[in-house]
Amino acid sequence: MAVSARVTTERVGVCAPAGFRASAAAAGVRGDEHRDRLDVALILSDRPCVAAGVFTRNLVKAAPVVISQLTLRRHADVRAVIVNSGNANACTGPQGFRDALRMATATADSCEADPAEVLVCSTGVIGRPLPMERVLDGVRAAAASLSVAGGEAAARAIMTTDTVVKTAVASVPIGQVLCTVGGMAKGAGMIHPDMATLLAFVTTDACVERSALQTMLTDVCSRTFNCLSIDGDTSTNDTLLLLANGAAGGAPVTAGTPEYVALSEAVEEVCTSLVEQLAADAEGATKSIRVRVAGCADIEQARAAARTVVLSPLVKSAVHGADPNWGRIVAALGRSGASMSLDRCRVLIGGVEVFGGGRPLPVDLDAIRAVFSEPRVDIDVDLGGGEASGRAWGCDLSPEYVHINADYTT
Amino acid sequence: MAVSARVTTERVGVCAPAGFRASAAAAGVRGDEHRDRLDVALILSDRPCVAAGVFTRNLVKAAPVVISQLTLRRHADVRAVIVNSGNANACTGPQGFRDALRMATATADSCEADPAEVLVCSTGVIGRPLPMERVLDGVRAAAASLSVAGGEAAARAIMTTDTVVKTAVASVPIGQVLCTVGGMAKGAGMIHPDMATLLAFVTTDACVERSALQTMLTDVCSRTFNCLSIDGDTSTNDTLLLLANGAAGGAPVTAGTPEYVALSEAVEEVCTSLVEQLAADAEGATKSIRVRVAGCADIEQARAAARTVVLSPLVKSAVHGADPNWGRIVAALGRSGASMSLDRCRVLIGGVEVFGGGRPLPVDLDAIRAVFSEPRVDIDVDLGGGEASGRAWGCDLSPEYVHINADYTT
Repeated sequence: MAVSARVTTERVGVCAPAGFRASAAAAGVRGDEHRDRLDVALILSDRPCVAAGVFTRNLVKAAPVVISQLTLRRHADVRAVIVNSGNANACTGPQGFRDALRMATATADSCEADPAEVLVCSTGVIGRPLPMERVLDGVRAAAASLSVAGGEAAARAIMTTDTVVKTAVASVPIGQVLCTVGGMAKGAGMIHPDMATLLAFVTTDACVERSALQTMLTDVCSRTFNCLSIDGDTSTNDTLLLLANGAAGGAPVTAGTPEYVALSEAVEEVCTSLVEQLAADAEGATKSIRVRVAGCADIEQARAAARTVVLSPLVKSAVHGADPNWGRIVAALGRSGASMSLDRCRVLIGGVEVFGGGRPLPVDLDAIRAVFSEPRVDIDVDLGGGEASGRAWGCDLSPEYVHINADYTT
Repeated sequence: MAVSARVTTERVGVCAPAGFRASAAAAGVRGDEHRDRLDVALILSDRPCVAAGVFTRNLVKAAPVVISQLTLRRHADVRAVIVNSGNANACTGPQGFRDALRMATATADSCEADPAEVLVCSTGVIGRPLPMERVLDGVRAAAASLSVAGGEAAARAIMTTDTVVKTAVASVPIGQVLCTVGGMAKGAGMIHPDMATLLAFVTTDACVERSALQTMLTDVCSRTFNCLSIDGDTSTNDTLLLLANGAAGGAPVTAGTPEYVALSEAVEEVCTSLVEQLAADAEGATKSIRVRVAGCADIEQARAAARTVVLSPLVKSAVHGADPNWGRIVAALGRSGASMSLDRCRVLIGGVEVFGGGRPLPVDLDAIRAVFSEPRVDIDVDLGGGEASGRAWGCDLSPEYVHINADYTT
């Protein structure tokens, strides 16, 4: 399996698998002063896809989230995903639902599809009606410019406070055919285990049985996107979609087979790469953090412990300050819900052991300085109480985070 | 009942009730460069007290926490509380327990008490052994300077990154006698529902039956200190103690009586005042936030909703930026676990309604500007789904918070 954040061909991200095209348009959703900014993205498959989704668990759900959930619940085939940035179409009342449906209809009309085959996503400010004339013009412009080279533009159009485009691709042999998995994501702030202000789209040309695809996505999400914590907040619009169009050929992949495991690993590699890119580009962050907790009785405890450490504002501040503060890590572990005994606990920062046997260890300051000069800081914990382990991703807490979020417009 | 943050007499804080004296000493716990800083505090009752305590639920507990828990579990009478700041005596192995016991013994020796009648608390950096010669000199110096005027100095000696002394006093008639409740606290960072790096000491001259006192403290704590969230972290040393010495006279107060309710309200007034002072002096905060959520099916949901809002980094950043961002408040409510329907939800910021009927409302910008110019911002929510309500306290998130916590020494 080969994974790369950017491929060398023109088929980037969601366009890497066969049979997918994408495009973007600048519709002016954010107003005239942002007229040139890409803000509508379209993904189209040339044949019907089996689709799966994971959505925000926030009780306050944006209209497009509700519409897309209903579409998936009907088990309809999916042809297209239409996305706008700059406006979340959340807390917009009945008008919001009408607007989300109009986005689907306009997409279907422009792509010779059925409105019931179109998934809809929005991200941006909440509580304001979508500027529908602009959005619909954007949909039509995007539909007119679909191409296999449109993956990068589409990934750019979904960005809000992101500073870089995030795409990933993996290839994997499934039986006799080589299948490809591609993805793109936007994130930045408000990302948490419950999937917040996060949009991620994964495509594959593998042929997959419907319920197997949903199980695969739910499982992969629990180990990847749901282990990413930027600030503990969750939003109204989070959506992770996986579309499989079968263009690579072969028999449908079903659960419990070696093919299922192989494809699942490829999807996980793409999602892990996207998660690491999201952590590295988190709002106001200067470093990403990856926490791995081993030695737990079960996976749930291990993940809870890893998430609690990566989400601790004091640990995040310490990483920002290049401070090997084992005390804050140990304190976070102690309140995580995971069983622990201080005597058996070991803590390594960037491979340097800073705590063991119930005590802080003398630390080579040069080695620690080198650890904190890297763009990603790895914290490894062994609780010495079992075989299970879990990972979580996050970022440091910088003054810049506060500036960005204090100035964001209501 | 009269409550004031500072009383006009010399009997401040824990010295306000009859029969209590206090003092402080500068022992140099933080090293020679801080030789003049008060860092040892002593509270002494001239007669045995019934005592109750609430302690950190973190699995990593500092030695003094374990020692004080054991003392209370023996149901022994208590005479004194000895506290040092500058060093938490946490993660210090067996030596830590010996040192905590030596603090109790030295206090007992200096005050003609039994070591089993002394409660011990520490706060400060963790993982370093206490400088015991200095600490013991400080204990003896504090014992030599006990007075009814020592409440303010004691409150100063327990401070770490706090910038102001926090004390409170309330008086209440219990049967035929006037009883007084006094308190002091230190906090600043790492404060959360599970009681973190928070020390609070409450004294009363009321006469109270032992189990009633513990029930009272646990209940009051659940509505006050456990509703205070600064940054979501919890520490190894949190301790809330309540000492009742009966010096005011009268029959012992027992549970379920009007006297119990009256005394409980006075204790809650003192604790609420301390919580509001802690929120106002939180690390790096420029404003405190009080959230009240009404219209819930039960108190647990109401408190969970209030805590989720007050702890949201995005809400905290918005308050810092003087942004009436109802969207972040509504999104926090949606993930809090409380039942809600957006149509019935109302949100007021500083009394100005910003959201109602499922929609944002037009806001008078001058009125909102006035709200955010106050040192405390009140957020009031009505979920319209029941009779229960709950409160939570916190603070804004400022760039200064990050600076303080990135620079704190390991």
